[in-house]
Amino acid sequence: MAQGRPPLALSSISLFIFLSIVLPLHDCLPHSPGSLLKDAAQKASDMAVEVAGYVDVAKQIIDLAVYGAAQNRSYRRLADFTDTIGNRVSGSHNLDKAIKYMYTAMSQDGLDVHLEPVKIPHWVRGKETAEMVLPRTKNLAILGLGSSVGTPPEGIEAEVLVVQSFDELKVRASEAAGKIVVFNQPFVSYGETVAYRAYGASEAAKVGAVATLIRSITPFSINSPHTGWQDYQDGVKRIPTACITVEDAELMFRISRRGQKIVVRLMMGATTLPDADSFNTVAEIVGWQHPEQVVLLSGHLDSWDVGQGAMDDGGGAIISWEALSIIKDLGLRPRRTLRTVLWTAEEQGGVGAQQYYNLHKVNMSNYNLVMESDLGTFTPVALQFTGSNAARKVMEQVLKLLAPINTTKLETHGEGTDISPWMQAGVPGASLHVADNKYFWFHHSEGDTMTVQNPRDMDLCTAVWAVVAYVVADLQDMLPR
Amino acid sequence: MAQGRPPLALSSISLFIFLSIVLPLHDCLPHSPGSLLKDAAQKASDMAVEVAGYVDVAKQIIDLAVYGAAQNRSYRRLADFTDTIGNRVSGSHNLDKAIKYMYTAMSQDGLDVHLEPVKIPHWVRGKETAEMVLPRTKNLAILGLGSSVGTPPEGIEAEVLVVQSFDELKVRASEAAGKIVVFNQPFVSYGETVAYRAYGASEAAKVGAVATLIRSITPFSINSPHTGWQDYQDGVKRIPTACITVEDAELMFRISRRGQKIVVRLMMGATTLPDADSFNTVAEIVGWQHPEQVVLLSGHLDSWDVGQGAMDDGGGAIISWEALSIIKDLGLRPRRTLRTVLWTAEEQGGVGAQQYYNLHKVNMSNYNLVMESDLGTFTPVALQFTGSNAARKVMEQVLKLLAPINTTKLETHGEGTDISPWMQAGVPGASLHVADNKYFWFHHSEGDTMTVQNPRDMDLCTAVWAVVAYVVADLQDMLPR
Repeated sequence: MAQGRPPLALSSISLFIFLSIVLPLHDCLPHSPGSLLKDAAQKASDMAVEVAGYVDVAKQIIDLAVYGAAQNRSYRRLADFTDTIGNRVSGSHNLDKAIKYMYTAMSQDGLDVHLEPVKIPHWVRGKETAEMVLPRTKNLAILGLGSSVGTPPEGIEAEVLVVQSFDELKVRASEAAGKIVVFNQPFVSYGETVAYRAYGASEAAKVGAVATLIRSITPFSINSPHTGWQDYQDGVKRIPTACITVEDAELMFRISRRGQKIVVRLMMGATTLPDADSFNTVAEIVGWQHPEQVVLLSGHLDSWDVGQGAMDDGGGAIISWEALSIIKDLGLRPRRTLRTVLWTAEEQGGVGAQQYYNLHKVNMSNYNLVMESDLGTFTPVALQFTGSNAARKVMEQVLKLLAPINTTKLETHGEGTDISPWMQAGVPGASLHVADNKYFWFHHSEGDTMTVQNPRDMDLCTAVWAVVAYVVADLQDMLPR
Repeated sequence: MAQGRPPLALSSISLFIFLSIVLPLHDCLPHSPGSLLKDAAQKASDMAVEVAGYVDVAKQIIDLAVYGAAQNRSYRRLADFTDTIGNRVSGSHNLDKAIKYMYTAMSQDGLDVHLEPVKIPHWVRGKETAEMVLPRTKNLAILGLGSSVGTPPEGIEAEVLVVQSFDELKVRASEAAGKIVVFNQPFVSYGETVAYRAYGASEAAKVGAVATLIRSITPFSINSPHTGWQDYQDGVKRIPTACITVEDAELMFRISRRGQKIVVRLMMGATTLPDADSFNTVAEIVGWQHPEQVVLLSGHLDSWDVGQGAMDDGGGAIISWEALSIIKDLGLRPRRTLRTVLWTAEEQGGVGAQQYYNLHKVNMSNYNLVMESDLGTFTPVALQFTGSNAARKVMEQVLKLLAPINTTKLETHGEGTDISPWMQAGVPGASLHVADNKYFWFHHSEGDTMTVQNPRDMDLCTAVWAVVAYVVADLQDMLPR
């Protein structure tokens, strides 16, 4: 889909950086009123000059990742990984295989790889079916939600109460007892609407429902159910909960509004087994000057148990590996350590990442920048960044090095389940913002496959990841807090 | 989604039509060189004046359908119909129910309704599963193709040969014996690419394949298989054939290109039963002056056995009913008979329509215009028309009556499986061209539901259908052949 582009000559890039970064800063010095300001301006200028000094190495990284020998390699690696392993839900054999696969593959690239043990949830979907039996028979495509209990073996057959919101459920609380509550909430945004998936079961149980079927959290559907984690509230009865398709939620909503009685038969074999053994997978290029100081790149290796986990988050994991491979291939070694961490059990609430944080927070002052890619590896549009204003000024200069691939935009607020503990503790954090307008069409569904990826986009994401990580790890100073 | 629009005042519409149609034609008369041309011009002018005389009635129809009491009625009727019946494949009880439903509903609208018996194919899908068992286990979402034979009860387990085209199959014919041939053809257009679904099985059987799995005929997928009819070639062994998803076809293609052996286990319970009894459902407003002369409106009532058949072709059937209801509601009765035919077994190759043609072609000279809506009832963009140049000139004037809803475009070449015998025999034909860019995303899949429809679009389609049918049925003269 994306078009090829010839590499720009080094000289023109260097000139561009010099003109756009260094000259303006020098120009503004004579106008600074006081000496303190002059010092700050001098420092900013020095920093800009230092960052601009990486223009050639950034160009080398971009050339290798996007136009050179590594062209299409991120995509090929992701395809081989997902085609070979398939999806890899927390606690599954496939997740074990995935960790072994990545351990071997990253070691073969000459990276220093080790595993850090984590206990992770082990929820198993089992067989699940749902059928509308009144006013007519219709199979309902469902996906049980992570951590849901199952139904009794004979299933649950009950009348349906369709509501459009938590507010409507409150108003109609007296109608809910003994019923299967169907939530047909409209999609507003993932962040807002996911509350129905996360809390729908407990809210319905509070008013006596026996199960919940929740409209999938997506703006678009081809009768595709989407799974995801859900949270039972303490002290509230745990009832089976699954997502249905947008189409079936709307169907039952229309039927109910005509005053017709709806009965659904639900069967879910879901069960939670004892926690399983797993690992965060860690690969490093150890820094030559400050090996204890770290720039961390990351994506999560687990996925849901549907689709292939190519988008969520195979792509993020692969570019976090590939960024280090590109740097290694170029014979580069930064001052500080580049550490790629492939988290385990992100989908169960960032379990691997939380344990990593608990273990490593003692060294927090050595964490220079934590990076996460978990919103897709489509065309990169910006880097999202959380940090002090001083750190932001450095990052703005670093992003200018990505001018050859037009990805110089720095946005506020890095996001990411897995790096949020660090960011909350004050460590600068960055996440990859891509053209994600279709992301939730595929998210947590059978549609999360290699078909949604393309090689050019992944090369660009890798280039962004590698340039940012390398330069930040190699600058004289750590990012100011 | 579509925005409401206030009705234009009658006077401004009348003035528009007068200025745009009548005046220019009168203006050009003095410049005609000979008397024959003058006659022709006079006739054209007379016709334009006559058609322009319908501006007020067209406005009434549009107002009722789009802004008045019938606003949203096409959508509501389609929703009630599909929600109540569900899908309705040829030979099924649901199709019987659908015919009864429409017979009753159209009778209640005061239309003259009767049924015309047709023998139709009765193919039953049965249970079907497919699984890739090597190089790893993966469930494959499939939909067997209409008329396919089943597998033996124990299924077929065989190695896979993946090809991208019929040409590649020829080149690799020696590799095909005993294998399941997977076609991973790219989607070019439905018209072109559907050849793989229609003829893939026989082409593969000729080179010794034991079954075929064909990439679904769609430009976009959320792991959604699409079914459809297929044609076994006489004298060629009949092997089981199904569509797989774009995603799984690409997956197996990538794996095969890595040189890995793929084995698939296919189980299909498909069987063909003796032909079933069915009916074309016919509703009429009998013409007051030439009851034997007919303008025929149509859509097909059958669907595939997946999804809800809302788009293909519930919408076309409903607007063909609703157009007559609108005309009836306004107390209108044209010179000629308006006849809505809801075809049976279109998906099996236009079986109902072909029988109708065979029975009624003896009266061909009385068929003024045959109309079909079978490409969706999304926003209407044009009317496609097949007929003589003289007939086209009339239709161009008729379409100008749709200026209030900006649907005045007349395109060449009416399409439609069910009206094609008439058009081939020289009867003028018209079909509805809508904004169909997503049509094949849902076509013949579980995604064909009410969720893809919207009320405003259906109102507009109904208005186009009713205005064209009424005016053509009421003009002094039949359309010239």
